Amino acid sequence: MTEETAVRTVQIKEDITSRNNAQAASIRESLIREKIFYLNVMSSPGSGKTTLITQLLNRLRSDYRIGVIEADLDSDVDARTIAQTGVKVIQMHTMGACHITCQMSREALDALGTQELDVVILENIGNLVCPAEFDTGAAENLVLLSLPEGDDKPLKYPLMFEIASAVAVTKLDTAPAFDFSPDAFRANVHRRNPEAPVFFVSAVAGDGLDELEAWLRSRINAVIGRE
Amino acid sequence: MTEETAVRTVQIKEDITSRNNAQAASIRESLIREKIFYLNVMSSPGSGKTTLITQLLNRLRSDYRIGVIEADLDSDVDARTIAQTGVKVIQMHTMGACHITCQMSREALDALGTQELDVVILENIGNLVCPAEFDTGAAENLVLLSLPEGDDKPLKYPLMFEIASAVAVTKLDTAPAFDFSPDAFRANVHRRNPEAPVFFVSAVAGDGLDELEAWLRSRINAVIGRE
Repeated sequence: MTEETAVRTVQIKEDITSRNNAQAASIRESLIREKIFYLNVMSSPGSGKTTLITQLLNRLRSDYRIGVIEADLDSDVDARTIAQTGVKVIQMHTMGACHITCQMSREALDALGTQELDVVILENIGNLVCPAEFDTGAAENLVLLSLPEGDDKPLKYPLMFEIASAVAVTKLDTAPAFDFSPDAFRANVHRRNPEAPVFFVSAVAGDGLDELEAWLRSRINAVIGRE
Repeated sequence: MTEETAVRTVQIKEDITSRNNAQAASIRESLIREKIFYLNVMSSPGSGKTTLITQLLNRLRSDYRIGVIEADLDSDVDARTIAQTGVKVIQMHTMGACHITCQMSREALDALGTQELDVVILENIGNLVCPAEFDTGAAENLVLLSLPEGDDKPLKYPLMFEIASAVAVTKLDTAPAFDFSPDAFRANVHRRNPEAPVFFVSAVAGDGLDELEAWLRSRINAVIGRE
């Protein structure tokens, strides 16, 4: 009886994720056709997604028309932070859900309104597990790991690092307080995802932001057809 | 069509969690009847669960017979760390699942073997969302938040802090590198969970461990019937 329940749970999950991912492909294709670059930013709770996005907005918003979707189980503290940069932002509440499905992604894109935008940035739920399973329809996945979390995390949360287009280690300025090996981390990422570029950044001190910005501009320009 | 899918997903989730939680209550009752204290330790990835558990094991293992269940999506690095303390430990792989159901919990307890134990500690998947929804049958939930994650996290991950028996802020030694207000954090926890004790600890420097140990001993002794 209980054994059957466990098996059934897995089956339901596979049905939901495979249906989700088929629909996500159509979101991705239609956004790319409309020359809109959609970036999905994922990480653990508290690893600095909002702070890094704010820095990137300040560097990009004079060149691109950008909108931001802030996803959270509850609260709108991040959306209020992003709104201070002057870009268009909406808050999506997932009502307790641990990830963004492509349906939620589509509704948020509609609510934001993408007609006049070049770039949409989705700040996903802080979670290294579930968001990796649900394709949002984004063109690229930027995965952050804060340095305090430790260099072994790609071994423990493999899918998140497998689906990353690029990985950025945040809070580089706190390195003296932690035992974190950049070489071990890079090796752990590349074991799962040999091609992913790995950036080391501090949104506070500014390190590494030029390199991350250059990567992001190249991905944006490839979609919107700018040199 | 797509709207129906989203609604159906929520419904399925409610069915699974309510069935899970009914079964979890029976695990909890039978363990308490057998005078076995079962502790569920939850937090984000990389917030120091394994390191703190190791410190607590070193303080408790001469007085109690302790077993540890290490849950991970993949890898066995944590189980190998715990094994060095000399306590009985098993590794559970969730095959990508973001939480421990009570069925997985029961199988792990059976695999560990609880007959000769006073205490079982479950190190749950690193995730502030899903593990909060799935009662494992533990007598108490210890929720950790590492100081680098920020004092606003109880606002963003409310359920995890609501179900906490106690909350411990880890990595207190790194406080100089971060803008974290202990008072704001305590207020954010108590907004959701007015009774929960909040500890501030450093597993490296030793701060706060006496207080956390005293809380844990009182909870263990209440279940196993020791003064």
